[in-house]
Amino acid sequence: MALKTLSGKAAAALDKELMSTGAFSIDQLMELAGLSVSQVVYHVHPPNKGNRILIACGPGNNGGDGLVAARHLRHYGYKPSVYYPKRSKNDLYQRLAKQLEDLEVNFVDDFASAMKSADHIVDAVFGFSFSGEVREPFPSVIKALEETKIPVTSVDAPSSWDIENGPPQSGLGSKFNPAYLVSLTAPKPLVRHFKGRHFVGGRFVSPAIAKNYDFEVPNYQGVDQFAEVGVGGTRKL
Amino acid sequence: MALKTLSGKAAAALDKELMSTGAFSIDQLMELAGLSVSQVVYHVHPPNKGNRILIACGPGNNGGDGLVAARHLRHYGYKPSVYYPKRSKNDLYQRLAKQLEDLEVNFVDDFASAMKSADHIVDAVFGFSFSGEVREPFPSVIKALEETKIPVTSVDAPSSWDIENGPPQSGLGSKFNPAYLVSLTAPKPLVRHFKGRHFVGGRFVSPAIAKNYDFEVPNYQGVDQFAEVGVGGTRKL
Repeated sequence: MALKTLSGKAAAALDKELMSTGAFSIDQLMELAGLSVSQVVYHVHPPNKGNRILIACGPGNNGGDGLVAARHLRHYGYKPSVYYPKRSKNDLYQRLAKQLEDLEVNFVDDFASAMKSADHIVDAVFGFSFSGEVREPFPSVIKALEETKIPVTSVDAPSSWDIENGPPQSGLGSKFNPAYLVSLTAPKPLVRHFKGRHFVGGRFVSPAIAKNYDFEVPNYQGVDQFAEVGVGGTRKL
Repeated sequence: MALKTLSGKAAAALDKELMSTGAFSIDQLMELAGLSVSQVVYHVHPPNKGNRILIACGPGNNGGDGLVAARHLRHYGYKPSVYYPKRSKNDLYQRLAKQLEDLEVNFVDDFASAMKSADHIVDAVFGFSFSGEVREPFPSVIKALEETKIPVTSVDAPSSWDIENGPPQSGLGSKFNPAYLVSLTAPKPLVRHFKGRHFVGGRFVSPAIAKNYDFEVPNYQGVDQFAEVGVGGTRKL
């Protein structure tokens, strides 16, 4: 059975709706999204498997989710390092970065070198609003993610993938297929090309909204902020 | 071994610090505080023990934590009802209430009557900034909490208790001793008089801040946003 998915355009409209008529602030949504990512990382890679988590953060909301996840991972007892080369001037992102600095989380300048001492990588570079070309300094990050043997958890989208069509047909990113993917609120069409373990996070969508946007709220368990929905883009029955 | 506590004055200073130099927004802190309360309720009263949770919300931040907890409880599969007689005009609280309305959470006008069909009660009426007298319409709520056999989880303080000195010596609230207490960030001195199971929530405090304010970050487990710290105001070894 195929998963219902949400196009990039619909995901943008949903975000806008949550923050207008839905009455959520971006602080709330990003906190819950990043929290769900941190819980997935704990689930697939508990601290006893190696507590050095490298989080690659892009310049937009996907990067913000990564910053929140890094903070929670730090509280869980991991030693996160954050690669955040294009810092936004947006007040929220600046505050999320400051919260990490106060926890003495390490910000690294050289992604390739930081990878050498990482046990797990979180790819929070690009999310559902990505399209077109991977801009500097991220091509070398995508290349490293593509080539590494270290397990990678991607946030919302494997970075460099087209939201509707999946991986580029050739060149940079075409061979990137992370071990884990956390789709936020709902899977995007690219999930058809994904081969790893697939989770959904963002436990804040009302049944009415899910119905309007024609996707399913996954079967969250207990107080979990994430649900595992299947492998390789199929739906677990 | 006695628990280290935080006076009402110190708790106010800590909140102020978190939201200034700590760079947190109140949306973030309230989301995480309310989330921790919802997790404690799930822990002590899972849905199969009865899923009707009545949440009494006061006019201030304690009430806001209750509104957030109600939303998460709804997502966990409970049927929360909210008593919120003194709605704040503050934008955040209005948004938190709207988020509940969108989930079709029931707002009730008559607390005593709503209690008749509740399996568990959350007391989010007054928090660490309470002092002095219980104002209308809350005296009858305190009286009902004092007399009920339904288990009650209090948020930060059993409402009507003095933050430093505990329950009033006589009259309203003097016999109120809830089954569960969730202290937010750190226990307040009133905990010495508390006889139930005691939890701490609010997993966002840095070790440096805890050191400055001379309290201990509790031993959180896994991804839990709460930790059980003892019974009756003592510290679990």
